Amino acid sequence: MSTIAFIGLGIMGGPMADHLVRAGHSVVGLDHSPERAARLVEAGGTAADSIEQAVKGADVVAIMVPDSPDVQSVLLGDDGVFAHVQPGTLVIDFSSIRPDVTKELAQIGAERGLRVLDAPVSGGEPGAKNATLSIMVGGGDEDFERARPLFEVMGETVVHVGGAGAGQVVKACNQIVVALVIEAVAEALVLGSKAGGAPHRVVEVLSGGLAANKVLEVKGEKFLSHEFTPGGKVAYHRKDLGIALAAGREYGVPLPVTALVDQMFGVLEAKGRGDWDHSALLTLIEEGSDSAVHKA
Amino acid sequence: MSTIAFIGLGIMGGPMADHLVRAGHSVVGLDHSPERAARLVEAGGTAADSIEQAVKGADVVAIMVPDSPDVQSVLLGDDGVFAHVQPGTLVIDFSSIRPDVTKELAQIGAERGLRVLDAPVSGGEPGAKNATLSIMVGGGDEDFERARPLFEVMGETVVHVGGAGAGQVVKACNQIVVALVIEAVAEALVLGSKAGGAPHRVVEVLSGGLAANKVLEVKGEKFLSHEFTPGGKVAYHRKDLGIALAAGREYGVPLPVTALVDQMFGVLEAKGRGDWDHSALLTLIEEGSDSAVHKA
Amino acid sequence: MSTIAFIGLGIMGGPMADHLVRAGHSVVGLDHSPERAARLVEAGGTAADSIEQAVKGADVVAIMVPDSPDVQSVLLGDDGVFAHVQPGTLVIDFSSIRPDVTKELAQIGAERGLRVLDAPVSGGEPGAKNATLSIMVGGGDEDFERARPLFEVMGETVVHVGGAGAGQVVKACNQIVVALVIEAVAEALVLGSKAGGAPHRVVEVLSGGLAANKVLEVKGEKFLSHEFTPGGKVAYHRKDLGIALAAGREYGVPLPVTALVDQMFGVLEAKGRGDWDHSALLTLIEEGSDSAVHKA
Amino acid sequence: MSTIAFIGLGIMGGPMADHLVRAGHSVVGLDHSPERAARLVEAGGTAADSIEQAVKGADVVAIMVPDSPDVQSVLLGDDGVFAHVQPGTLVIDFSSIRPDVTKELAQIGAERGLRVLDAPVSGGEPGAKNATLSIMVGGGDEDFERARPLFEVMGETVVHVGGAGAGQVVKACNQIVVALVIEAVAEALVLGSKAGGAPHRVVEVLSGGLAANKVLEVKGEKFLSHEFTPGGKVAYHRKDLGIALAAGREYGVPLPVTALVDQMFGVLEAKGRGDWDHSALLTLIEEGSDSAVHKA
Repeated sequence: MSTIAFIGLGIMGGPMADHLVRAGHSVVGLDHSPERAARLVEAGGTAADSIEQAVKGADVVAIMVPDSPDVQSVLLGDDGVFAHVQPGTLVIDFSSIRPDVTKELAQIGAERGLRVLDAPVSGGEPGAKNATLSIMVGGGDEDFERARPLFEVMGETVVHVGGAGAGQVVKACNQIVVALVIEAVAEALVLGSKAGGAPHRVVEVLSGGLAANKVLEVKGEKFLSHEFTPGGKVAYHRKDLGIALAAGREYGVPLPVTALVDQMFGVLEAKGRGDWDHSALLTLIEEGSDSAVHKA
Repeated sequence: MSTIAFIGLGIMGGPMADHLVRAGHSVVGLDHSPERAARLVEAGGTAADSIEQAVKGADVVAIMVPDSPDVQSVLLGDDGVFAHVQPGTLVIDFSSIRPDVTKELAQIGAERGLRVLDAPVSGGEPGAKNATLSIMVGGGDEDFERARPLFEVMGETVVHVGGAGAGQVVKACNQIVVALVIEAVAEALVLGSKAGGAPHRVVEVLSGGLAANKVLEVKGEKFLSHEFTPGGKVAYHRKDLGIALAAGREYGVPLPVTALVDQMFGVLEAKGRGDWDHSALLTLIEEGSDSAVHKA
Repeated sequence: MSTIAFIGLGIMGGPMADHLVRAGHSVVGLDHSPERAARLVEAGGTAADSIEQAVKGADVVAIMVPDSPDVQSVLLGDDGVFAHVQPGTLVIDFSSIRPDVTKELAQIGAERGLRVLDAPVSGGEPGAKNATLSIMVGGGDEDFERARPLFEVMGETVVHVGGAGAGQVVKACNQIVVALVIEAVAEALVLGSKAGGAPHRVVEVLSGGLAANKVLEVKGEKFLSHEFTPGGKVAYHRKDLGIALAAGREYGVPLPVTALVDQMFGVLEAKGRGDWDHSALLTLIEEGSDSAVHKA
Repeated sequence: MSTIAFIGLGIMGGPMADHLVRAGHSVVGLDHSPERAARLVEAGGTAADSIEQAVKGADVVAIMVPDSPDVQSVLLGDDGVFAHVQPGTLVIDFSSIRPDVTKELAQIGAERGLRVLDAPVSGGEPGAKNATLSIMVGGGDEDFERARPLFEVMGETVVHVGGAGAGQVVKACNQIVVALVIEAVAEALVLGSKAGGAPHRVVEVLSGGLAANKVLEVKGEKFLSHEFTPGGKVAYHRKDLGIALAAGREYGVPLPVTALVDQMFGVLEAKGRGDWDHSALLTLIEEGSDSAVHKA
């Protein structure tokens, strides 16, 4: 069993830390919200007041925070993780951030004798709660093997995809597929409906053959009801596509359709729908056709 | 039990007719290839030498041929189906053709007292063989109900989507989703691989979360091995996207990403890959990035 | 001097016929509007009541009508041009129509001993009035040389681009460039303005270097004032892009950006702006950014 | 007359400094290449060995270097411009760099009592040599008026577009238009040629009406001869489009076609054509159509 500092106990980090507690690990949590910390204590963990206190004696430090600057601040700040942990500590960053930042952090960590993994996840709140996340890991073989038992407590699909930063790029690739599938469903559904197909029957057909996909399975109802509470937010998804496009630039890979769909997410943001579920791409196709998909 | 004339006994029509025979119907087949007709006879059907002979006494006429002009010729030709059938006959066109042609045929049929359904299918050769096709039906309610027992012998997902032509448009919608999912996987897989992910692991990850889709399940191996024997051919898929784009024009629905991916299929055709499997969209992304996805 | 039947005396055809009269030719006009015919008579021409009457004794027949079916009806109708003219007559079609229709008409004409040229024009109403049109001619060398003196009376740039239909394709190419330049100006102008540039100064800068173009010169004021009375209508321009995309399909040429901008014109149509000037592409970028370009 | 330090005497900066000398100003040049410095001395300027020496006594400091990091190093380095100039000095940055960097530099400069203008130029080597540049200026009114006489010595179109950074964004807008016009010409020219038009005649037609543009005027010959020595390099143009897309993200402006053409420039880079003239977009359309435009 490990002693694990878990920094960031939000919608994702909270249930992930809980699973570690339940698996028998000693988990010390840290979050700016006292309620969240209290919830972990209730679940059997303990709460810390500072990074220094949280990481003291930990052999693993896990973090799950929103974006690149947050990770940089938590790890590299004057009073941050790197300043207080012992050499040999395993640092696992579950956040979805820019791969170049990840690589830089891994290098700085290595210089201090730390072992850093990037391990962004896919599956959202239900995945975190039900321990069915996909976890995409970048970093060294040995470090991955050391962390694997922890990953398997939280996720269903755990894949070591490559060296430092590879987890982040593959997470971005995952988001490419999700975005384009949403757009595909949106174009098909509006056209099929406008041509006289009952929308729920179009959804039924698309779910039955080679067009079948998880987006339609999970979000089919959203497309029909236009109830766009997230789920995955437009603004976060666009952040991820920005990471994908920057990676495409760095690695010389053309991403023509990703580039186009990224612009469409931008239109959603400009229209004030950044907080809607990403399936709201549908609304752009509807508004561009002066027609709406209605549930029959 | 019905007496069914089945015209067009190719890769798709052959096994579909077989299923009807096995279900106890009396099936009279017609095909320009004597081998195909012989196969149906072996399976328990009979073979005709002309449309006139095939449809004589049939209460249902089914056709499965490649494209719009073929259907027009079989149905409207001087010696075609419409010239020889009795009023009240049910005519089911399983071919994937232009919805405007379908609507015109339905109208001409109605004037002669015939009942015409468009019923394009999705699922390919395996779907036809295993009777797991998706069948998208356009036409009248009563006619659909009359045909439903036959459809259920051949398909798993049978959906009456709307009036005449609606089956064709929904088939085109299905092809929109398939095309865009292929492109999504291609962009994601090349980027993930070039950034250091082992391709088969990238496929594994993409198959595990919200990005999961049937294309990856069925064609994951093709993407990794670059073995592009069809399956669904580039040229046929482009024909279908052309139908989708024409329908978008007619119904006033914007299809920006479909329009772009259609152009990419056009590039594949220009490069002489019209007969490759449609997953060959991958090769365009690879060639645009001067990199290849290799199976580890 | 020639005897010329001129069919279609609208916004374009009217002034074009006038120029022929002024150059000394004997022009017999035909139009369904008596006012238009009267105007030609005032200018020195004569008016006919039927195609038969118009073409009697003509050595040249010119037509300028809206779309493919109009041309087909005028030329091929039971009482149409081809039914009444003498072999050897030169038939010049100034309309912008589908190249496949043009080619078919040229072939039918050739079978009857006629000489048919396609000669679509660019330059709009001012070009027609000021005899500064660009005329793109498809057809045989000899026929072009015979028609050249007439073209030079109406246009400034007269180019024999290729065989039958080539004029139509090149006209479509012209429309590709115009559409993409409009979109380019729209994206640049909204971005520059939103980033703090005064719109009229952004226009001034864009007009000064390698970005300079005729669209900005002619329509710069429209972009700034949002006064979108046509000029070139969205709906006509989309018809032309449809011709271009069909030609791209036929000849195997990828037109990725044309395909995308065509979809954007479709959105304008769906929003009820089909009758606006094509520079209204600007409104889509503005609405997608929740910002407007205002004249300072 | 002013005393001007000019840092960066390359293809652009060299002739620009010469014009200032010729106009009677006292110009002290600095470049890492002794040959370039010598050329300025020949022209009547003087050469410095360090930034400190160059800016001593200068009331204006001009810089023209390749990219954001170069500007940051020259201005903010320990031994850089800001460390050595007197408060009140006018600093003019002619480089094309990221607007956020420009804004940051303007702010740091303001804190030290300096007056900073961004003044990127368009028009290339011929524009620099012939003093026909377009100069797009961001910064304060008063500072612009002070610099205007210098700008007018070097450029033909001098426009004060807005506050700090606005010059950079408008330069990026200029590059949007240039890129999209190149793509427009490429699509039109390949289609027109493949459909049977002689390429040079297609160019002639496109140059004659609403499609007319400076790109075709300046680079028409390159398109026909496939002689792609730059001119404007693909790699630099892509850098500029990256700036435009980042600005679109920041200001919430959709740039769908720019995003797509940017990906196409990326393909050119991946194919090893980053050093070719940007008109080489033509080669992508040709290769996608398996056809080439040849000069007749």
